[in-house]
Amino acid sequence: MLLDSINSPADLKKIPENELGELAKEIRQVLITKLAAHGGHVGPNLGTVELEIAMHYVFNSPVDRLVFDVSHQSYAHKIITGRREAFTDPSKYDEDSGFTNPEESEHDWFNIGHTSTSISLASGLAKARDLAGDHYNVVTVIGDGSLSGGEAFEGFDVVGEMGTNFITIVNDNGMSIAENHGGLYKNLKALREGNGVASTNYFTAMGFDYRFLKDGNNVEELIAALRELKDIDHPVVLHICTEKGLGYEPAETHKEIWHWHNPFDIATGKTVHAAAGKLDEVQAATAAANNASAAADELASYEKLSAQWLMDKIEHDPRFVVITSGTPMVVNFTKERRDKAGKQFVDVGIAEETAVAMASGLAKNGAIPVYAFSGTFVQRAYDQIMQDLCINDNPAVLLDFSSSVYGMNDVTHLSLCDIAMMGNIPNLVYLAPTCAEEYVAMLEWATTQRDHPVAIRVPATGMVVTGVKDTTDYSKLNTFSMTHRGSGVAIVGIGDFFPFAESLAKRLNEELGIDATLINPKFITGLDTAMLADLERDHTLVLTLEDGQLQGGFGEKIASFYGPTAMRVKNYGIQKSFPDRYVPAQLLAQNGVTLADMTDDVRKLIAE
Amino acid sequence: MLLDSINSPADLKKIPENELGELAKEIRQVLITKLAAHGGHVGPNLGTVELEIAMHYVFNSPVDRLVFDVSHQSYAHKIITGRREAFTDPSKYDEDSGFTNPEESEHDWFNIGHTSTSISLASGLAKARDLAGDHYNVVTVIGDGSLSGGEAFEGFDVVGEMGTNFITIVNDNGMSIAENHGGLYKNLKALREGNGVASTNYFTAMGFDYRFLKDGNNVEELIAALRELKDIDHPVVLHICTEKGLGYEPAETHKEIWHWHNPFDIATGKTVHAAAGKLDEVQAATAAANNASAAADELASYEKLSAQWLMDKIEHDPRFVVITSGTPMVVNFTKERRDKAGKQFVDVGIAEETAVAMASGLAKNGAIPVYAFSGTFVQRAYDQIMQDLCINDNPAVLLDFSSSVYGMNDVTHLSLCDIAMMGNIPNLVYLAPTCAEEYVAMLEWATTQRDHPVAIRVPATGMVVTGVKDTTDYSKLNTFSMTHRGSGVAIVGIGDFFPFAESLAKRLNEELGIDATLINPKFITGLDTAMLADLERDHTLVLTLEDGQLQGGFGEKIASFYGPTAMRVKNYGIQKSFPDRYVPAQLLAQNGVTLADMTDDVRKLIAE
Repeated sequence: MLLDSINSPADLKKIPENELGELAKEIRQVLITKLAAHGGHVGPNLGTVELEIAMHYVFNSPVDRLVFDVSHQSYAHKIITGRREAFTDPSKYDEDSGFTNPEESEHDWFNIGHTSTSISLASGLAKARDLAGDHYNVVTVIGDGSLSGGEAFEGFDVVGEMGTNFITIVNDNGMSIAENHGGLYKNLKALREGNGVASTNYFTAMGFDYRFLKDGNNVEELIAALRELKDIDHPVVLHICTEKGLGYEPAETHKEIWHWHNPFDIATGKTVHAAAGKLDEVQAATAAANNASAAADELASYEKLSAQWLMDKIEHDPRFVVITSGTPMVVNFTKERRDKAGKQFVDVGIAEETAVAMASGLAKNGAIPVYAFSGTFVQRAYDQIMQDLCINDNPAVLLDFSSSVYGMNDVTHLSLCDIAMMGNIPNLVYLAPTCAEEYVAMLEWATTQRDHPVAIRVPATGMVVTGVKDTTDYSKLNTFSMTHRGSGVAIVGIGDFFPFAESLAKRLNEELGIDATLINPKFITGLDTAMLADLERDHTLVLTLEDGQLQGGFGEKIASFYGPTAMRVKNYGIQKSFPDRYVPAQLLAQNGVTLADMTDDVRKLIAE
Repeated sequence: MLLDSINSPADLKKIPENELGELAKEIRQVLITKLAAHGGHVGPNLGTVELEIAMHYVFNSPVDRLVFDVSHQSYAHKIITGRREAFTDPSKYDEDSGFTNPEESEHDWFNIGHTSTSISLASGLAKARDLAGDHYNVVTVIGDGSLSGGEAFEGFDVVGEMGTNFITIVNDNGMSIAENHGGLYKNLKALREGNGVASTNYFTAMGFDYRFLKDGNNVEELIAALRELKDIDHPVVLHICTEKGLGYEPAETHKEIWHWHNPFDIATGKTVHAAAGKLDEVQAATAAANNASAAADELASYEKLSAQWLMDKIEHDPRFVVITSGTPMVVNFTKERRDKAGKQFVDVGIAEETAVAMASGLAKNGAIPVYAFSGTFVQRAYDQIMQDLCINDNPAVLLDFSSSVYGMNDVTHLSLCDIAMMGNIPNLVYLAPTCAEEYVAMLEWATTQRDHPVAIRVPATGMVVTGVKDTTDYSKLNTFSMTHRGSGVAIVGIGDFFPFAESLAKRLNEELGIDATLINPKFITGLDTAMLADLERDHTLVLTLEDGQLQGGFGEKIASFYGPTAMRVKNYGIQKSFPDRYVPAQLLAQNGVTLADMTDDVRKLIAE
């Protein structure tokens, strides 16, 4: 194998140019083998093997700085830059992250995972180079799907007047995670079809020079094109067309589902389900809370439940609009559902800021918008949630998925700060359902009231179906639900950690004989001060349990409320940090969030 | 006066077209008179009088929806839509906000103040219209300076494929608040100079149709152009050129300083300083803490101190770079300073996301970036601070100005949530100086250490100069400073509220005979747990005092720390809300943050 000799870009450069096509085949085979066993970003990596070979063949990394947008497509780059074994040796598959990572290699400049950041980040590298009087190349790779994010535009605009070496390779595979959306993509299409010539050109309008290469999977043509740009003295875009998923037929054919994929059988492309492991405490609590057999059926996920509920509303009410920002599958809006919803579905592309603002405008103008997203990405719309939506107090509905310790666990995809972010914005009502019935009741209320923006923190620990309809009047804001009144100790368990709070109550009863009061607050953005004050009569300790970061979170508000009183309060959650590729139960244990540790704490606290 | 007859757009339409030029003159005179007495956005409003007359002459507001970006230029619109007296009657000058406001008028769709939002907000209005099967016009006005913000681009991109009526008027006056920056502006210039024709066109690249009108201050030509676009069935940009500050010579000549201006003398253009009122408690505390006569001299503002300090560093160290995002005067980077700093100054335009990412890239590549901003606007870069900067832990420095109850008091320009936002991001070190000496020591440390991103919350209550050099070693993170050790009660006063905490200590001593411990935490992003734990020996009550929102803030962390203990904690600050055009002392009083109320609280709490 040619690949065996490559431990650095210098080794790559020793291979004759006419053998690089063969090397690409080898790398592609390695990728397919690892991805089948391990899961990961299939389409993006298979499409850019030749590009990354060519980049390292022409440029001199790490002197020349190579920056990959999202960096989910950087596997070939990793293989070439000394990390081959993380792809060829199954025992080392987990050694490297799925993204560029400066802790792994001097060839990686940033830990990246969110889209549309590469040009802005690299603008700083270029500026620092120029200040130091150096002359190396700064090269960025950005996919067409990432172009729609505001930060990418800002980056083009800023670099467009820098008048210095800056090479941006636009990797155009004709789609985002799902279809591309936006007027810009008409221009990209025109440029593709015109072989780089069209009546207008976004990139030159931004102040960049522009080159076009049709066959972006031809390594020799790529090398020629990049050689021409090396050491250029101004910003230039090289627009190349690549085939997403190239070399693995299922990924070529079904590009959306193969953007990221679980482990699969190479021959059939079918998903391989790992044998279920032992449930951890949180998962066991969720399972224990799950009384209804429905949980086992096809609808037993909040994503599918959401999609069905929304499709039903769309069908019966023309005012309903579902918005997503590039990730419709977050709410299980399959191609079929998107087509069926028609004009009542809007994918704005990767553009969370506009998604929130559009939702505000829709709500203001009489429609019923529901914007569904992954918590980690909506961080990009913090100001829009505050300014465009909440100052205006328009009744848009936000569905926050996978904000949880049990959400995505790459450091760049964490959503542990959603409560710190959304829980502290005035006018916003942020709700935390503990089961499917509450979730549906919250959806019904949120989409019929016209008073406030409402966000719902969709549980990420698995769906609980209690079989009992929720008849709560959610217009009575900040009314907590006390599911059991005991005495001495009260446990406030928020959202998907409520079943865990139930388990804790059981444990306290068994081990300490405590009849703990159990509270399901439902509202994250306010306190039920009457209920909390009433606890002072016959409780001395309140525990709070939340699925996210403690700092800025919900528990701190309870602590502040009781601050002037004799009530003791202990907050449980995750200490402020950026954990990477962690195991949830371990992270919780490190933070003392286990039934054993919490029971011990209570034992000590009530003895004082 | 023609103006006297106008109480609605219907009245405007009764005026013959050839008299509208006269009306524009009258409105301009009214604006100058009010602005001279009241202060406000001078340049933007004087430049768009004809445009707003033409819009209301052609369109049928509020059936047709008119949305103004930032809406700082909407005064003529307000005058035409029934709010004339707020501009002609001095006793009513304060009745209306400086921005569009749905609470004032059905002709206003959003409460707006941040830039670059209009197209995205209006995309929702248009979508709701289409869903309802209606056919009115959706019209937005956006200035050239606002185009550089990512949300504007996202909006263009999304609307560019909507294929429906959407009219965007690009009001091109050739500058932002300061100079325009970005590659896009080369394209705008080419379009201006080519009478709407250039080799490429940003707006058509976004999928918009495009029209050009050179004389955007000619009301009859504007009317003709808008009539042509009315009821158009697809998105179109009308690019017009206007003169910022038109009709008031000083504002025409010195556009940057007349973008927004304090009250002024019309004849000379000189600023009129209001007679100083009685100091409120916070201001008095700040004054009392100010021992040095230097406070009275020319350098006695944190803005000027910052600028001088930064210019000195720039001169002596080529690695230093100052970044601003469209508002260089935030850190007193005058035109002269910008020119002198040369390539060591970067104004990215209104593009906070890229400013943060660029700072991260600069720091990663060996430079020393200092990004200065108003707290309210950096909210747009929440995700970039977290992802691009803090996950990568690059040593960029952020200077946060006017995050304070004493900052801008328009609801759209509040920065009361900066602690909730930046105080809860992992890896970030957020510092709160209480005086000039601490500020300088923090700047020195922040720009020499290479371990973490550091943000500094620059005080907004006025500069305190103690005359005592600060020799703190800030590399010992989260080490609080105890300036006095008493017993019983401890007061933690953060940043610019530390002098206020000193006043409270004095009051507690005088009224209750309490020798309160005084703590200046300096670090917002972490607790000095050793010092706090030590207080438990001989204190029963800790008060926290912060200049911002309580929820998600600093005090809650202290409450959570002491939650499991017998220590009582009382947090002082502002309850979560969106106050608008408030008086700081009143807002504080409403929240119980007065010396009298706090003293009363202590009296009660220690008696329990």
